[in-house]
Order: sequence, then C-alpha cells, then structure tokens
Amino acid sequence: MPSENKPAINGESFALGSERSVIREIFEYGNARAQLVGRENVYDFSLGNPAVPTPECINDAIKELVGDSSFNVHGYTSAQGALPVRESIADSIRGRFGVAASADNIYVTCGAAASLSVTLNAVCSKGDEVIAFAPFFPEYKVFAEGAGASFVTVLPDTDNFQINFDDLEKKLGAKTRAVIVNSPNNPSGAVLTKNTVLRLCAVLREFCQKTGNTVYLISDEPYRELVYDGKEVLYFPSYYENTIVCYSYSKSLSLAGERIGYIFVNPAVTASRDVYAAVCGAARKLGFVCAPSLMQYAIAKNPNAVSDISVYRQNRDMLYNALCSFGYDCVYPDGAFYLFVRSPIADAKEFCERARALDLLLVPSDSFGCKGFVRISYCVDGKMIERSLPLFKKLIESL
Amino acid sequence: MPSENKPAINGESFALGSERSVIREIFEYGNARAQLVGRENVYDFSLGNPAVPTPECINDAIKELVGDSSFNVHGYTSAQGALPVRESIADSIRGRFGVAASADNIYVTCGAAASLSVTLNAVCSKGDEVIAFAPFFPEYKVFAEGAGASFVTVLPDTDNFQINFDDLEKKLGAKTRAVIVNSPNNPSGAVLTKNTVLRLCAVLREFCQKTGNTVYLISDEPYRELVYDGKEVLYFPSYYENTIVCYSYSKSLSLAGERIGYIFVNPAVTASRDVYAAVCGAARKLGFVCAPSLMQYAIAKNPNAVSDISVYRQNRDMLYNALCSFGYDCVYPDGAFYLFVRSPIADAKEFCERARALDLLLVPSDSFGCKGFVRISYCVDGKMIERSLPLFKKLIESL
Repeated sequence: MPSENKPAINGESFALGSERSVIREIFEYGNARAQLVGRENVYDFSLGNPAVPTPECINDAIKELVGDSSFNVHGYTSAQGALPVRESIADSIRGRFGVAASADNIYVTCGAAASLSVTLNAVCSKGDEVIAFAPFFPEYKVFAEGAGASFVTVLPDTDNFQINFDDLEKKLGAKTRAVIVNSPNNPSGAVLTKNTVLRLCAVLREFCQKTGNTVYLISDEPYRELVYDGKEVLYFPSYYENTIVCYSYSKSLSLAGERIGYIFVNPAVTASRDVYAAVCGAARKLGFVCAPSLMQYAIAKNPNAVSDISVYRQNRDMLYNALCSFGYDCVYPDGAFYLFVRSPIADAKEFCERARALDLLLVPSDSFGCKGFVRISYCVDGKMIERSLPLFKKLIESL
Repeated sequence: MPSENKPAINGESFALGSERSVIREIFEYGNARAQLVGRENVYDFSLGNPAVPTPECINDAIKELVGDSSFNVHGYTSAQGALPVRESIADSIRGRFGVAASADNIYVTCGAAASLSVTLNAVCSKGDEVIAFAPFFPEYKVFAEGAGASFVTVLPDTDNFQINFDDLEKKLGAKTRAVIVNSPNNPSGAVLTKNTVLRLCAVLREFCQKTGNTVYLISDEPYRELVYDGKEVLYFPSYYENTIVCYSYSKSLSLAGERIGYIFVNPAVTASRDVYAAVCGAARKLGFVCAPSLMQYAIAKNPNAVSDISVYRQNRDMLYNALCSFGYDCVYPDGAFYLFVRSPIADAKEFCERARALDLLLVPSDSFGCKGFVRISYCVDGKMIERSLPLFKKLIESL
C-alpha cells in the first residue's frame, strides 16, 4: 500500500488492480505498442479475443430486436434471465446432451467470469477449498479467493495434459468443496478423454461416499464448441450428479465483450433448488442485476448457432505445423484456440521477453500453474500468423 | 438452511437468494398474475423499469455498430472500458459540471448495482462501516455487507426528506469508511437542496479533519437526469474532494436491462490512482470482465442523450394530483420517477396487501429503512395510471 497513512482502501482489491492479470497486461502493452509501430507490426497472440466474426444470425437478431418498438428489449429481465431465454437454453441442453434441464435450472450470466464467480460464491464458505488442475485459467484463483475459499492446485500432467490422479487423491480432503474442470482446456488445448472423465467422476463419487462430503464439479465450458477432428467433449452432468456447468457464448459466438453466458445447476445436484437459490443470492450480492437483455434475447433466437470455427482449425494447422518444423515442441490441441508450446529455454518468462523484442506477444505459462511453456492464442487473423512465422523461426534460431 | 446434513452451500448467498428483494418479488408476482388475469388488469407500480422508449439515436447507433463489419464491436474491451468510451464520458462530465475528469478516472461498469458493489469492494475492508440515509435503496445493505462492511442507517427526515444531521453526527465514527447519497432519491423522489449538500460536505470534511479518517462520499446517481421544474442537482465532486460517483444509464436512456454505467473516481480523491486501482481489482475479483461492449460504444456515440422525460413529469402530475385529491398524503417528488405516499393505515405492508387485492402492486417502505410509506413507481404507461386511479380511490375509501 503506497499511502503512508492508514490505507483507506481494500488492500486485496488494490493488489488485484495494480498487478492486473498477466494476459491483460500483455494485451494492453500490445495496444500501446501498436500505436507506436502500427497494428500490422505487432503480433499479439496474448488474448482469447475471437477473430472469427459473430454469426450473421446474431447481428440480424440484434437489429430486429432494437427495431421492434412493441417489445421493451432494453428493460430489466428477471434476475435469473428472461423466462423464454432460459427455456430456449434448457431446450438446447436437453436436445444436445439428453440431460434433464428446465428453465428453473438455468441462470443467465454476464459471461464465464460471472458464471464462475457467482457459482463459487454460491457454494463456498470461508475455509473451503477449491481444486483446479494445472494448467488452469489464472482467474480461477482470483474468483475462488474472492469467494473466501482457498485455491488448491493439482500438478499438471505434462505428458498428455489429462489429470494427475495421484496428486488429485492427495489434494482431496475434508475442506474440498469444488473441483473445476475445463475441457477443451485453456491454455493447453487438450480435451479430457472418456477414460479421464469416467475416472475423475469415479474418484470424486468414491471420495464423497467415503467422507460424506459434497464436492461440486464445476465444468467451465467456454470452449465446448471449439473442438476439431470430430473429437467428443463429454457432458459432465451425464456422468456426475453434483455438476454445475459454467457456460459462456464469448468464444462460440465471438461475443467476448458482450458478457453473456449461463450457469446450469444440474437438477441431479444434491438439494438442487437450494444450490440454485444460492446462485441467485450470490449474483445479487456481487451486483449482477441481470445479464444484458438485448444479448439474452439475441441468443434465445439462435440457441444452437456457432461461429465458423474452420478458421481456427486452419490457424491451428498452420501454426502447429510451422512451429514443429522450426523445432518447437508443441502440444497438439484438440480444442479451444490455444497452442501450448514448451519453452525452448528453461525460463518461459525470459523466452517471452525475447519474443516480445520481435513484437511477438506470447503468454508465459507460469501464471497457469505450469512452468516452462508459453501459450499462443490462434484466434487471430490467419494473415497475422503467416506474417509472424519468419519471426518464430528467427526466435528459435537465435537461442 | 433446509438440508439436514452439513450445508454444502454458502448460507448468506442462500438466504439472499431465497428471500429475494421485496421489489423483485412483487415484480415476479405481477408477471405471474398478468398471465392469469391479463397484463392490462395488473397495475404494477413496483419496479423502476423505464416505460419511456430508449432514444432513437441509441438504437440507431446499435444498428450501425453491428452493421459495420470492419469493427470488432463484440470483442473484449479493456477491463475499465474502451478508451474512446471513457474519453467520451470524461468529456461529458467536464463539459456539464466543470470538474476535472479524464479517461483515467472513469471505470465503465455493468450498471448502478455493479458501480456500487465494485466501489464498496474497492474502498471497504472487514469491520468498516457504510452509512446510508433512510429512506434508501435496499440493495445498498446487500452490497455493503457483501463487501465485508457493516451497514449503518441514518434516521429519515420524514418532513422534508433531506438529511437528519443530528442522527448523522451520532453515526459517524472511527469505523466510517463511506457515506452513500442518492439524489434524486429512490424511493422518495426528493432532491437534496444546496443547503443540505453544503452542510453534508462541511460535516464530513470537519469529521475527517478532526479524526484523520478518510470518508468517501459515494454519490449514487441513476436519477440525475430525471428532475423536474428546473430543479438543480448539485454535483458532489465540486463540493467534496473524496467523492466517487456511481452512475448508470438505466433510467436516463431507458437501458435498465442492458447493464451499463460507470464509476467516476474524482481526481481530487486522496490517493486517487490507488483508489482507481482498487476499483479495477474489485471488479476483477467479483467477475466483471468488462461492461457490455456494444452498449459501451453506443453510449459513447451519444454521451449527452436523454430519454423524453416529459412523460414521467406528466405521470407524476396526474398521479400526484389525483392521489392528493383522494386524500392520500404524498411527498411532492422533484425528481426520479417514484411517488412516496404515507400509508393511510399504520402498517404499510398491510396497506400494500389490501392494494394487491385490487391488483395494485405497490412497494411498502419498510425495506427502504423508513416505515409507514409506500413507493409507487410512475415510470409506467400513462394509460395504466389513468385506469388505476379509480382503484386508488376505492382503496382509500375502503379503509
């Protein structure tokens, strides 16, 4: 705290606001750098800001909605989301996954971060522990601690980017309240296999039966639709009763800035109505009145729309093939839009510094709880990837 | 907690989600009732859901923005809001109030609730006290306690709905971190006079000088633009250095469901940069990634637009004159869109029950920290007010 007198602000909030997230910091650096040397000379692979356009049907729905003077599209909705919107989402879940879902199980949110923060504030109390598997999205820690819980990490499986079950068994304990999974994974691009999913559910179920604890599986699914080569992403509510799905349309519909997603409290969750009530209360406490209304209705008109992800597949193939040919050691990504690359030198941060000197903006993996890698977001213009390839080559040759 | 085993959810969140806000509950009742007896037979005066249409310039801006394929309108913005958006807001503040304001003092938010929740989480630590003046918006208590603070209320001035300074002086203490003001006021419609504003600022300044404390004045201003008969709403940053303005476009542009507003950290605030950093950190912790991007840009194109509030003035006059003529004792509202009426019977809740039997949905004042009144939102269709008048007459005659 820089002030010499008794600080009149919240120290934790100040620290979170001063440090900022590493990813956001690189993104801001990229914006500043672009003003100096021109946007076309900065190769910003830092942020998961979708490059593929939002589907036309969504923009058409927006234009139609604001053009309809008979409908108060900008008014408050119910806090949990307008009923027809929740019905549309529940229908889509039932139709796609065969899981019992009704409007009363859906809470529409301001995107994935809100979904997670609200869910953690709903189920966690002070002293509880929240487990995540490295590598993980670093804001999990912020949200878990914001909810008063301790954040516990399971060591990475750097061979296959599945789950290190030996370490999970060590970390599960009397204080465990929730386990966060994220498949397809940010930052590795890995998709959990059927074997992994079944084993994880069995481990959690056995632990809960043995101890009498309730452990929620929080499935963070912003990348569910972004999966390649026909890989299947299993739906956790079908395999583990106490599952809460945190969804976002940020990536599937390229709506990252609009903040729209939902929480699905599996009706099979123990005391599901109470958990849903706690979700309502947590959202209220944090200051979420309702999700943006225009986006709610636009989504409801197109419940199964997805951006054209073939662009991401092309980007993945171009980047993966080129970087491998230059000698980089890359994790083959089955989903999401991140390439996870082993740093050619021990210190990934230093490697990113050297990349930055060439205006290649990469994210070191340290903040993902897994040292020695870098994350390259390929949700960018393919032409930028093409132009960047000689620099990646130059970079590894310079080491 | 209804479960018999150790509860696996957060008790406070469960309570907040089960009880719900009184206002929201009446709103939901009204929706259910409308399905039974027809929307035209339910006189819902519960919610502040603007009835005046959003100005055309905003809807035109939305259509233009989503039609422009060269601009990624749906992508992430900086967490604090897109720079041009913050510049536009700062320009507007400078131009209208003559207060030094730059983009770096503005944090764009998901509406007033987010502005308040984020601000309180930025400045409060556990054990701090937040003071509000009755009658007050009941969610202040939820947000203050959510930020770990205690909520302290100053008794109402039921004669003039200004400030009970005697009680304020009793409530100010070593733990006071913030004082929330709300002018024009929800639920009374009162506007703080120049005398009140100057006296409040003097009291706070003197208290801080004497004790060495820092007390923030949080000015909650969703109704700033909704003021009648040429009344002036003074701008607190001009009168008290440690002012943080929480603004929302919900009412001024009829965008309540879109969740768009801002926090203005007065540059004259002590350690203003640190306070701003704490605002950034608090928003991050709570799960607000950025304010909805499309709405940010639409606002920035029309920084000084306001809905046609003449409709609210007409509603006010019609309702105030009629209710007075029936024998109701009404507070004359200078601003906002609420009529605050003394309950003709001692128990305002019971009075609201009797009104509800006639399908008149009113909000009892108990949850505003001021018993014996009811709030009537007149941000509704004028024709509904007209149709409701015989029922108001019947109601008071029946008592």
